[in-house]
Amino acid sequence: MTDSTETPTPPRFDPLIGRTHLLPAPTNLDAEPLRYRFVGGNNDGESVPHAALAEAAAVAVNRLGPALATYNLGGSALGYEPLREFVAEALTTRASTPTDAGDVLITSGSLQALDLVNEALVQPGETVLVEQATYGGMLSRLNRAGIRWRGVALDGQGIVVDDLERVLTELAAEGIRPRYLYTIPTVQNPTGSVLPLERRLAILDVARRNRLAIFEDDCYADLQWDGDRPPTFRALDDGGGQVIYCGSFSKSVAPALRVGYIVADRPMLAQLVALKTDAGTGALEQLTLAEFAPAHFNAHVENLKARLRHKAGVMVDAVRTEFGSSVEIEPPLGGIYVWLTFDDGVDTDALAAPAAAAGVEFNPGSGWSADADDGRRRLRLCFGDQSDEDIRTGVATLARIAREMTAG
Amino acid sequence: MTDSTETPTPPRFDPLIGRTHLLPAPTNLDAEPLRYRFVGGNNDGESVPHAALAEAAAVAVNRLGPALATYNLGGSALGYEPLREFVAEALTTRASTPTDAGDVLITSGSLQALDLVNEALVQPGETVLVEQATYGGMLSRLNRAGIRWRGVALDGQGIVVDDLERVLTELAAEGIRPRYLYTIPTVQNPTGSVLPLERRLAILDVARRNRLAIFEDDCYADLQWDGDRPPTFRALDDGGGQVIYCGSFSKSVAPALRVGYIVADRPMLAQLVALKTDAGTGALEQLTLAEFAPAHFNAHVENLKARLRHKAGVMVDAVRTEFGSSVEIEPPLGGIYVWLTFDDGVDTDALAAPAAAAGVEFNPGSGWSADADDGRRRLRLCFGDQSDEDIRTGVATLARIAREMTAG
Repeated sequence: MTDSTETPTPPRFDPLIGRTHLLPAPTNLDAEPLRYRFVGGNNDGESVPHAALAEAAAVAVNRLGPALATYNLGGSALGYEPLREFVAEALTTRASTPTDAGDVLITSGSLQALDLVNEALVQPGETVLVEQATYGGMLSRLNRAGIRWRGVALDGQGIVVDDLERVLTELAAEGIRPRYLYTIPTVQNPTGSVLPLERRLAILDVARRNRLAIFEDDCYADLQWDGDRPPTFRALDDGGGQVIYCGSFSKSVAPALRVGYIVADRPMLAQLVALKTDAGTGALEQLTLAEFAPAHFNAHVENLKARLRHKAGVMVDAVRTEFGSSVEIEPPLGGIYVWLTFDDGVDTDALAAPAAAAGVEFNPGSGWSADADDGRRRLRLCFGDQSDEDIRTGVATLARIAREMTAG
Repeated sequence: MTDSTETPTPPRFDPLIGRTHLLPAPTNLDAEPLRYRFVGGNNDGESVPHAALAEAAAVAVNRLGPALATYNLGGSALGYEPLREFVAEALTTRASTPTDAGDVLITSGSLQALDLVNEALVQPGETVLVEQATYGGMLSRLNRAGIRWRGVALDGQGIVVDDLERVLTELAAEGIRPRYLYTIPTVQNPTGSVLPLERRLAILDVARRNRLAIFEDDCYADLQWDGDRPPTFRALDDGGGQVIYCGSFSKSVAPALRVGYIVADRPMLAQLVALKTDAGTGALEQLTLAEFAPAHFNAHVENLKARLRHKAGVMVDAVRTEFGSSVEIEPPLGGIYVWLTFDDGVDTDALAAPAAAAGVEFNPGSGWSADADDGRRRLRLCFGDQSDEDIRTGVATLARIAREMTAG
């Protein structure tokens, strides 16, 4: 007989005793934000077009009215059609990626896009390819889902094609076929680089020869301020079915609006919609963006890019001034972050606690690197929502702590 | 050597060949809604307070402005504080459930609440208890997550306490301790019943003796129009840590707004927030509701309930007129649905296709029943977004198809 008060496996979380098992660490709900918060995809508050958004919200909610009573506003599970039309038009004109509104799925932020694509394409225990330095939120998701990854080397321009070939050969020898290559080709996160056209073509060629899907995350591409925006992998594939594309309004309009999108072929979208069991992405956010974007998006993004470009300059100058030759930094070509590499034995995991004690928060590189150990000599600093003065003071503080650490 | 073009397990979904494996069936993206759509939690379009929502959106977005540039509006990961304060106040005054805003987590619809609680409390292969007839979206979620369930019998008032004891004894003999009891005590979905106070107390007592968590889904409770609203399990537990509570604005304000909430003890919330990796629930929806609700919620809900009560009467009359004694139906005490039980051998799974061909969509009972076979003699009809005329004509059409089926 089994004792009825016991259970064969411990509970994940027992609400009565709070024991946890197989779960991420609980969040500290009482944590206060630090003074210098160089983390998170927060954007430039002064540039939020809130008057235009407020007007768009009022106009759109009044116009749609009774449709709010119906899931998906009574329309397609792909999302609000006028918003999908704007996304398709913007990709066509801004990203040289001819797109039909029927190939767009609106998601609850691009994070949901990552979750849906992972769930559709990958089983626990299977392997995907990521860039050597990559979006930490993707790595933590893969971890949680029990998905393995291999890193592909980057240089100052992005993925090193020969290394992609090398990794694929290595995996093939192990009998492993990776399910996709996750890449952020334009305004790479965290490096801020932009992959040149010829590399895109070479990588697409490798992917085709290896039947390797490309999962293209273009969330920061609208914030490229330096140089021409190259065509997306999705455009270069030209209907080949090799590329699943995602983007977001979080970076270009406002992070607190949770609206992203996936562009893929219809059979793939039909599968993703079946997995999207959230009863639709928030209607107010979709309606408001659909009303706001056609009139204001392009001008807003130009204004935002100018502000971010200025802040990036302040950040790069501050890093160079305060850290000198002990740190490598490449000026980003867009976006809201810079990526620092230390050459003097600083361990950025160990730096986090003393920096926090001095009021500075940053992303240790281990969480943003395919090889966590290699990442410990790197870190990411976000500057989107920081003032010039805070950038300078925060970086000076961080540099002081790092010097104390290496001296001690 | 492993052949590099092959993989040991088939891919879940190969974007290049569309093969699926271990995935739900793809959605038909081109499906058109049927004429008589008695499915889905859609609500009464005429009652959507869109002018007040439009004004609230404009006021709130203008006021918050730059905060939209920051995830979670720069505040707590629990959600926008004024909205949590409204939820706490409404639970305290409308549901006799004293609640602090710090015990409220805003979710992206109550569906996310279900996902978070499942992920926190249950591992694949483990067992939970559900009501014999229950929310189909919960059963499909459990299915997808590989979670088992046992049904507890219902009568016209809700859970049969003796049956709960019986099921627990049976499971204990098998060495199984269920992770929670999922219950919709007030305006039960799909039966529309309201569990009386004395049963709530008895069930709480059973739960305490068995260390069984109660997951209380109160999404329809604001729409109870008949009789007093009993105190929630959460209130009766009075800080005992036994109850996780969830609710929603989808049913009381508008389904297209994706805002729900969980009320639980802080350690549980800290765990749920760590699992809520969506970078926050949509700010526009939260801001707008927080602005709208204090001034308008109570009056709006009274108006909505009167409209739904009328529609429920039309629906019950139509069912009794068209189906006569071949169907059992209990007039619901609130909500937007009725639950029909056939006693003449109608198989509601088989009824679905011919009904759809005649323009009538309904929820076959198999998807809304712990015992799918038993559910095949039942079905759910939603009436929230249907006109009186459409209810009458749709039900008459459905009855005709059912008669033809049993005659043939």
